[in-house]
Amino acid sequence: MSLDYPAPIRELILQMKSLPGIGARSAERMTLWLLGRGNARVAELEAALEGLRERVAMCPECGFYMEKDGSCPLCHGTRRQPKLLCVVEQAADVLRLERSGAYSGLYHVLGGKLSPLDNIGPSDLRIGELVRRVKGQHPEEVILALGADVEGEATSGYVAEMLRDTGVPVTRLAQGMPAGGGLDHVDEMTLHHALSGRRKM
Amino acid sequence: MSLDYPAPIRELILQMKSLPGIGARSAERMTLWLLGRGNARVAELEAALEGLRERVAMCPECGFYMEKDGSCPLCHGTRRQPKLLCVVEQAADVLRLERSGAYSGLYHVLGGKLSPLDNIGPSDLRIGELVRRVKGQHPEEVILALGADVEGEATSGYVAEMLRDTGVPVTRLAQGMPAGGGLDHVDEMTLHHALSGRRKM
Repeated sequence: MSLDYPAPIRELILQMKSLPGIGARSAERMTLWLLGRGNARVAELEAALEGLRERVAMCPECGFYMEKDGSCPLCHGTRRQPKLLCVVEQAADVLRLERSGAYSGLYHVLGGKLSPLDNIGPSDLRIGELVRRVKGQHPEEVILALGADVEGEATSGYVAEMLRDTGVPVTRLAQGMPAGGGLDHVDEMTLHHALSGRRKM
Repeated sequence: MSLDYPAPIRELILQMKSLPGIGARSAERMTLWLLGRGNARVAELEAALEGLRERVAMCPECGFYMEKDGSCPLCHGTRRQPKLLCVVEQAADVLRLERSGAYSGLYHVLGGKLSPLDNIGPSDLRIGELVRRVKGQHPEEVILALGADVEGEATSGYVAEMLRDTGVPVTRLAQGMPAGGGLDHVDEMTLHHALSGRRKM
């Protein structure tokens, strides 16, 4: 057997390598870097992970993350428009929309999108919760802000169908030219959407 | 104040971002990925970090890593040539040399290289330990396998100087063409070394 790192080092490299976007070399580099920084630095990272595990909960209403002993800043924020409900795939999308400054209503995080190849069906997403919520709160509009890829489109279609009975208007994000992009940087499908959705100046 | 993740999530993102090669986006993605995997997965990573902290020690002899309750596989491996000592900058270099299969002697990890700009001087490296070790064990040869960059060269020169009194021959890695590389991929300094170090075929 050839020489290798001691087992605890190999184990951490393995754990790091399984994180998204981390290859074998990065995992080794991060692990040795932590070793070089000493125990206090490693303990800090452990404490942060423990905090994630013990202090973070998912808001049962909107699906975003909140502190276990607090209330959801999204569902109970006082300066939010309570009559708009925006449906997104994942928690990170909420922050993207917030940072854009274009929206200040309520959110509903689905937790993914329909993807038969990955065995993700309607019951794996928070679609039932959405329907119940819309029936209970009767917003003025439900905005579907899902991705424009095939799975995102399919999910939008399915969700819209499930909400049809509620009588609440369902809209979706406009598709078209990305800000700052020239025609040469845009694929044909986007150009098609941009042209058919053109607006008067 | 604009909306952000709850504090425990922000804290972990910050910790992840400080790891080498990890930017803000990767740190956010890894953190949310861990959240999505659930507590068991997070606890696994915590356990691996704890293992690193509690079960790994540095071998006082060679500077490589070993399990606290075991013996160093490098210093006490039975099939190693005990009369060759190879000096490297860091632990990862040991594995690189081992994997090349070209060397089976002992190692000495310096823990870095001289770098005045980063305030790394001789006392920050395991140079004193090296001199004592060479004096005590009298190997037949000390091979300096440090990097060929400016700091590596300076460190090699300094270490060779410190070992002069011991009378033990000190060599360094050959410099020249990298395996598989054409002339067009090699910088002038490397070409210079390759030419002046040419060998008869």
